[in-house]
Amino acid sequence: MTADALTMDKIVSLARRRGFVFPSSEIYGGLGSAYDYGHYGVLAKNNVKARWLEAMTQERDDIVALDSAIILNPRVWEASGHVAGFTDPLVDCRTCKLRFRADDLASAQCGRKPSKHPGETEECDLTEPRRFNLMFETHLGPMHETADKVYLRPETAQGIFVNFKNVLQLARRTPPFGIAQIGKSFRNEITPGNFLFRTREFEQMEMEYFVPPDEADRWYAYWIEERLGWYTRYGIRPGHLRVREHDADELSHYSKATSDIEYLFPIGWSELEGIANRGDFDLTQHSEHSGTKLEYVGPDGERYTPHVIEPAGGVDRALLAFLVDAYDEEVVAERERVVLRLHPRIAPVKAAVLPLIAKDEQMVSRARSLYEDLRRRHVVEYDDGGAIGRRYRRQDEIGTPFAFTIDEQTLEDDTVTVRDRDSLAQKRISIDSARAWMDDALERPWNTPKAG
Amino acid sequence: MTADALTMDKIVSLARRRGFVFPSSEIYGGLGSAYDYGHYGVLAKNNVKARWLEAMTQERDDIVALDSAIILNPRVWEASGHVAGFTDPLVDCRTCKLRFRADDLASAQCGRKPSKHPGETEECDLTEPRRFNLMFETHLGPMHETADKVYLRPETAQGIFVNFKNVLQLARRTPPFGIAQIGKSFRNEITPGNFLFRTREFEQMEMEYFVPPDEADRWYAYWIEERLGWYTRYGIRPGHLRVREHDADELSHYSKATSDIEYLFPIGWSELEGIANRGDFDLTQHSEHSGTKLEYVGPDGERYTPHVIEPAGGVDRALLAFLVDAYDEEVVAERERVVLRLHPRIAPVKAAVLPLIAKDEQMVSRARSLYEDLRRRHVVEYDDGGAIGRRYRRQDEIGTPFAFTIDEQTLEDDTVTVRDRDSLAQKRISIDSARAWMDDALERPWNTPKAG
Repeated sequence: MTADALTMDKIVSLARRRGFVFPSSEIYGGLGSAYDYGHYGVLAKNNVKARWLEAMTQERDDIVALDSAIILNPRVWEASGHVAGFTDPLVDCRTCKLRFRADDLASAQCGRKPSKHPGETEECDLTEPRRFNLMFETHLGPMHETADKVYLRPETAQGIFVNFKNVLQLARRTPPFGIAQIGKSFRNEITPGNFLFRTREFEQMEMEYFVPPDEADRWYAYWIEERLGWYTRYGIRPGHLRVREHDADELSHYSKATSDIEYLFPIGWSELEGIANRGDFDLTQHSEHSGTKLEYVGPDGERYTPHVIEPAGGVDRALLAFLVDAYDEEVVAERERVVLRLHPRIAPVKAAVLPLIAKDEQMVSRARSLYEDLRRRHVVEYDDGGAIGRRYRRQDEIGTPFAFTIDEQTLEDDTVTVRDRDSLAQKRISIDSARAWMDDALERPWNTPKAG
Repeated sequence: MTADALTMDKIVSLARRRGFVFPSSEIYGGLGSAYDYGHYGVLAKNNVKARWLEAMTQERDDIVALDSAIILNPRVWEASGHVAGFTDPLVDCRTCKLRFRADDLASAQCGRKPSKHPGETEECDLTEPRRFNLMFETHLGPMHETADKVYLRPETAQGIFVNFKNVLQLARRTPPFGIAQIGKSFRNEITPGNFLFRTREFEQMEMEYFVPPDEADRWYAYWIEERLGWYTRYGIRPGHLRVREHDADELSHYSKATSDIEYLFPIGWSELEGIANRGDFDLTQHSEHSGTKLEYVGPDGERYTPHVIEPAGGVDRALLAFLVDAYDEEVVAERERVVLRLHPRIAPVKAAVLPLIAKDEQMVSRARSLYEDLRRRHVVEYDDGGAIGRRYRRQDEIGTPFAFTIDEQTLEDDTVTVRDRDSLAQKRISIDSARAWMDDALERPWNTPKAG
């Protein structure tokens, strides 16, 4: 189906219906744009993270992993500029008592006249904009009066910069080299929304790539291509991706250049990942604030502060893009089916094992034994509930790429059918070769038949 | 080496030296008992989590995964009893101005006389105990005056209970069934310490297993054995584990029975994981507070509130136990070596590929090609830096179970040596079979030669 025909509601509904994502704290009325991941959501999200970390570390020689704490020493955020500058300008309406982002009134709704934007009617009485910091504050230690004010990190990047020296020393690295981190961040957004697209609590995948200053432009271009390639490799249609370079007046205080990889979400082209040339801003700031010189010293005594190229993606947002891009509806044999054409290495379940007749003991026994064999290495599901067509449909909706069906013929010649989720083609293979077939299927490059 | 000869300092030192774990925010003087994981720490921790989730979900049919938000609707913590009761009794000393846990004065040190406990000297002037809540508070929304007070979760369990109904409906489950979750929790402890053993920010692995009430005792016993088995399966010596049942006066408000799996840490026998019989406390509380009936209704109309058995472990603490249990020092060929005898599926790096002579182009070419082949499926390291003995030692210290060395003979007969980390035995295998050899080595049951 075409992107503009796909609404976010369909994705939300499928995610809910199949247990990928639930509204958080739902029995208590939720908590504004917070979500809990159900079984398939956890598996798919773990796959997104594993593919990212694999691409960053396992498949390369020049990047190491890190997992820093969420609550860092608060001086980190003074040095980074977040205490002073990580703010949104907000205005209050004295009439309707609502609060809006002053820099985005055009997309807000007046509390009294929902068809209007704040300021468009005479009723609106807006205050002057005031700046509010987006960092969540809390206190370390058992009493507020004496405890230290600390912050939940609004980005994982700073945890990387403050460990630069540790990694440089231990990992025996010479620029260019990178440090990759996956973890939760928190931003007290006034306008979260659009499902997983913008939430106050979210998971980031950030990599800081430290390079000699005169190579920064080259690596900036390199990482834009590299990250585009990662998304298409795992199934996103190239036509649904584009790169948009920030104008000078859009750039963050630390950035010399930033490009967004945008994805054609149902809400329109929106940021999927940002690739920034942060220059030497962060290392210089932390050198000054900490008194620890963060620089590279070469074997011949050459020394410099590396520049930093940062590809910064969101786990939740990437998963949303994978789901959106995979979602399809089609009519097969006069019945409509919903199918998630997920890449096999992103799909939560790799294969289903289905005894054609759930009451046939021999079929069940063969099916269970294949299932036990496959799940030693892969996430597979055994399903004997309901008509075979209904079981296929259920697996289609969660994106399971392969289904092995044990039928009468299995009992005769030790073969099973393998059904392909996308083409619906079925072929018979020897039951003994099923596991090797799966191993191979999950490792070979893969292209799904997708429209446009 | 024996457990009592191993000090925590040795583990801290190795973790630091090899880049497993760094003190957090170190360049800013740290932040009291907070840690950042370096490259090998991330890989090993990810393995611990993957093995747990695998054992809970992939290897079983009756447990599904969940990943709920860290910040939940605050009413969750009213229902769970945490707002009222998740407190420590603290006393202040008016003389030395320090604060202590009133229930643990014996392990605290007087601020003026470090050889004494608070209250032991005439100088001490202790206040009456006051109760302080251990939950971190923060505020949702951009202004404190009007924002909602919310909490960082002190346990992942409650996120499971509030999703009970969603999972019950969607996963087509009948008790007994379980919901497993891994994620960060936060407790504002006054006395964190002992490296990764107790930190304010930590990662939990909790599973809530919902059972018919009359089966609770049986499943409680089952899960104690099951969890013990998980630790020994991944290499912990049975002699370093024991089960300690809580006395009645130790039990938490929600618990009908709790047993700790204790591990012989360098600080002595201490809790590694708790298995609790929570009865129907949580589901009943959330039913009452949310107005949503959380019960099981069977096909014949039978209905009951399931009882809950909870194995609750810590990721960081489990990793610490795996490191401690794996740590060994021995003298080999008159030289001392430090070796981490980690289970291959916990070890951060599965194999090293080493060209014997780093300047020999043919060896390098064969080594790189083996490396590229192996890392398609496993985390492997290529190392050509320094004498071969030094490279082996480095891999021993990070616990790499296998090392493939490419030497003169490789160029003649296409074989490589495989060195076993523990026995130091070396054997030759065909280079073409190395990948299948690795696959097999990582799947077969494994017993390390450990003393005691």
